[in-house]
Amino acid sequence: MSEKPVAQVVAGDGPSKSELKKRAKALEKEKKAAEKAARQAELAAQQAANQVDFASEFYGPLPLNKSQSRPRLERAKINTLSAKAGSSVLLRARVHTSRGKGNVVFFVLRQCTDTVQAVLSVKPEKVSKQMIKWASSLSDESIVLVEGDVLKVDTPIQSATVHDVEIHVTKIFLIAGLTAKLPFTIEDAQRPEDLIEEGDVQYNRVLLDTRLNNRIVDLRTQTNQAIFKLQAAVGDLFRNYLSEHGFTEIHSPKLQGAATESGASVFKVSYFKGNAFLAQSPQLAKQMAIAADFERVYEIGPVFRAEDSNTHRHLTEFIGLDLEMTIEEHYHEVMEMLDGLFLYIFRGLRSQYKDEIESVGRQFPAEDFKWRDGPEGTLKLTFKEATDLLAEDGVPREELDDINTANEKRLGRIIKAKYDTDYYIIDKFPMALRPFYTMPDPEDPTLSNSYDFFMRGEEILSGAQRVHDPDLLCELMREKGVDPESMKDYVDAFRLGCAPHGGGGIGLERVLMFFLKLNNIRRTSLFPRDPKRLAP
Amino acid sequence: MSEKPVAQVVAGDGPSKSELKKRAKALEKEKKAAEKAARQAELAAQQAANQVDFASEFYGPLPLNKSQSRPRLERAKINTLSAKAGSSVLLRARVHTSRGKGNVVFFVLRQCTDTVQAVLSVKPEKVSKQMIKWASSLSDESIVLVEGDVLKVDTPIQSATVHDVEIHVTKIFLIAGLTAKLPFTIEDAQRPEDLIEEGDVQYNRVLLDTRLNNRIVDLRTQTNQAIFKLQAAVGDLFRNYLSEHGFTEIHSPKLQGAATESGASVFKVSYFKGNAFLAQSPQLAKQMAIAADFERVYEIGPVFRAEDSNTHRHLTEFIGLDLEMTIEEHYHEVMEMLDGLFLYIFRGLRSQYKDEIESVGRQFPAEDFKWRDGPEGTLKLTFKEATDLLAEDGVPREELDDINTANEKRLGRIIKAKYDTDYYIIDKFPMALRPFYTMPDPEDPTLSNSYDFFMRGEEILSGAQRVHDPDLLCELMREKGVDPESMKDYVDAFRLGCAPHGGGGIGLERVLMFFLKLNNIRRTSLFPRDPKRLAP
Repeated sequence: MSEKPVAQVVAGDGPSKSELKKRAKALEKEKKAAEKAARQAELAAQQAANQVDFASEFYGPLPLNKSQSRPRLERAKINTLSAKAGSSVLLRARVHTSRGKGNVVFFVLRQCTDTVQAVLSVKPEKVSKQMIKWASSLSDESIVLVEGDVLKVDTPIQSATVHDVEIHVTKIFLIAGLTAKLPFTIEDAQRPEDLIEEGDVQYNRVLLDTRLNNRIVDLRTQTNQAIFKLQAAVGDLFRNYLSEHGFTEIHSPKLQGAATESGASVFKVSYFKGNAFLAQSPQLAKQMAIAADFERVYEIGPVFRAEDSNTHRHLTEFIGLDLEMTIEEHYHEVMEMLDGLFLYIFRGLRSQYKDEIESVGRQFPAEDFKWRDGPEGTLKLTFKEATDLLAEDGVPREELDDINTANEKRLGRIIKAKYDTDYYIIDKFPMALRPFYTMPDPEDPTLSNSYDFFMRGEEILSGAQRVHDPDLLCELMREKGVDPESMKDYVDAFRLGCAPHGGGGIGLERVLMFFLKLNNIRRTSLFPRDPKRLAP
Repeated sequence: MSEKPVAQVVAGDGPSKSELKKRAKALEKEKKAAEKAARQAELAAQQAANQVDFASEFYGPLPLNKSQSRPRLERAKINTLSAKAGSSVLLRARVHTSRGKGNVVFFVLRQCTDTVQAVLSVKPEKVSKQMIKWASSLSDESIVLVEGDVLKVDTPIQSATVHDVEIHVTKIFLIAGLTAKLPFTIEDAQRPEDLIEEGDVQYNRVLLDTRLNNRIVDLRTQTNQAIFKLQAAVGDLFRNYLSEHGFTEIHSPKLQGAATESGASVFKVSYFKGNAFLAQSPQLAKQMAIAADFERVYEIGPVFRAEDSNTHRHLTEFIGLDLEMTIEEHYHEVMEMLDGLFLYIFRGLRSQYKDEIESVGRQFPAEDFKWRDGPEGTLKLTFKEATDLLAEDGVPREELDDINTANEKRLGRIIKAKYDTDYYIIDKFPMALRPFYTMPDPEDPTLSNSYDFFMRGEEILSGAQRVHDPDLLCELMREKGVDPESMKDYVDAFRLGCAPHGGGGIGLERVLMFFLKLNNIRRTSLFPRDPKRLAP
């Protein structure tokens, strides 16, 4: 406010019409300025009262939040706004999109997966043109603090997840802006993949590599927000089921003194003056936990595979969901526990995470994952029955000593056609295909007490009864070319008395990839690692 | 059974007295043999019916369990036996101890932390002397399958956890024996530490190193079974609290492309043709998750520290309980969340795991862990107030730019004496003591918005508000001698807009060690790793 009066009346001179007009205008301006000053004073008083350090009274950048004050004002969540029609709210959100249109700016504001429309329009004494101009200049993905009134709308808003209300903005402040260019827009990053596949030229395709190079932005899509809610859900369901069945969670070391299981695919670590190796699985540790009387254990943790394969389903680091349990009579006790676990996870996802699954489906349309949920139970085939199905379908017998990836998928299609299920178990694998710690079949030593679980024609779990007898274990180790001395601690665990036991290991990212049919495991890993990727 | 009749009567000769005696004896023997054959036939029929492959009908080694059959017989848990008085049970257990005494063998049988007395005594037609001899020869820690009758006892049995009943054994089979000598007995391994400290010569002291070298056996003690139930409990309580407060579990990669945070204490990994590094904490990843709109995240996973220190509280690999959350107004929101979390964990342990805590206390007697649970809340001091307390206590001011380990413990004693609490928070650490990503105090840039949490005078959590502004971040990095270019992905995350946030990291093993006062962190790690230990 200028201290100099805007208009001075000169004595003796009657004011001209234009002067009067000018004077009226000036007075009007003075009045406004006085009002503004009053408002500012009022606001300053208000702000002093609640200690909000707003940069300007209605809009503008806030000073960097260094926790200067704590007014304890309630901040709203977008997903609760429908119930708040008629009230005023304060909330932090991202500018998802904005569109200026004369004296109005339409925002879509976003909090995680929730969006709402917000409108800022010129209103005398409240919303100035400058405010409109400033607000419409905010770049997408800016983080703002918005105050406004929640109002019901007549026509449902399709462009936001909240359809029935919108926010009429009264104040808008910038909490954090962008100092770099967005590599792609969130809208582009969450377009349905099938539309893009069909070559719809109006859309910018965001390639997976671009996404992963800019994972921070990519993860903000509703699809990815949903994927990682679902990832956490799989972990929760896994834990809940096992906890209800008497399992104890353990944490085994990832640093190992020796390269175990199979030396070729183990990462070497410089460990002070020597070397260590990263565990390929908690296999040995969880079996030792059984020898140490833990009875039923599970672990959720990273496993490391130094395999130089850049396929759609391999990572060099992934999350293993592992379990091991004692057997009273028969290894099918373990297989059935695992089957119960999978059914619990599938049912839990389908019933409790419907919205998230639909959200992912909008970008990655897929046939719903199917499993047999009736009294007939999960489809269980022996390895022989599985290879017979493939042979009947025309695969030459000589190919079927093992089931390679192509035949694995073919089997999945055959089984889907015949049994209408995406989930099944293959039991009794040939001993030759399994690691040394696998228990041979009691009647046919060329077979083993081992099983794989499949989702949509790809393996998601491998498990077996283990050898708990140290003499048989050493014999099998030698057969497979492993020197029992090189794994002395492991073998010794069984010399001190160990109950019969079995278990399995599940790849968390795979379960989610196949359940949602995402076709690439990198989509279900927060910051994926493969032979070519160590960042971000 | 021999096919030849045992006694033949010769025609014409009257039998002599001694011959008659012999004949009677032989007939008796035949009768017994016939009875035994009948019993065997009956048992064979029974076994065929329920498919149990018992080696002998009453006792002996079972064939190696390769899942030959599945009779589906119920197997009992020792902790349910009190309710089963009068009935017959079948159960798998370890021989905890055994004591032969003429025609009787007294066993203590064990399942995890539960023990019960079992008696095997000679009974005509049922329990032979051979059976007694065989059973009494079973080494401690053998795993047996026992059938017997559960009977109430008049005098409570003090040597077992089940006091009111014992098992009268009718059958006993060996499931898994020992083919190596026990390095120490379970009884020795769980003797109260204070008795040993007092130099009671009747006990064999089992040193920590011996325990860790033979961890499989050491873990079988009731103490260790309880410790690892409690470890799992801390994890569960951590998850439950955060899940209830809107946090999402994430899994961040342990393999990093660059040595981050502080290069000196990072393990280097051979990664195909290049190198990778093991994450020292999920710090950067969880902050990037905040920049990616996850709002509130937690992670439970291994963290790796290449520090060559063999102290009681350092491991090269431990389980980090990490969390990060956005801040609406003030970083105390985070500090209070963490405080609420700790109180929830303490209360949960105390109320739900009384037995386990008592079990540990029998070997490691300790004053109960104390915290302020009343309306006055947790004790919170500033760094300045804490150093003032030390100075008042006689510590020279020039020592107090930082609080070293000795002064940390001294402070713990001062606070315990003054405030009667083992748990407190120190807030507002000098900026010089904290990493570059710590937010400076808004009024005094030599201070920071950071805090440590303490249990029994030792640090168990370090946390802070983080710098979410890329320009300030780069400035602080340069001040601390870190080239922002070397952490480009991390800095870039903030260039794309990141909300104010803060968090903290907790060492799982430390929380448990201090809660139970175990004095060495190796006791709360399943298979601990330190600069000198990579096995088992």
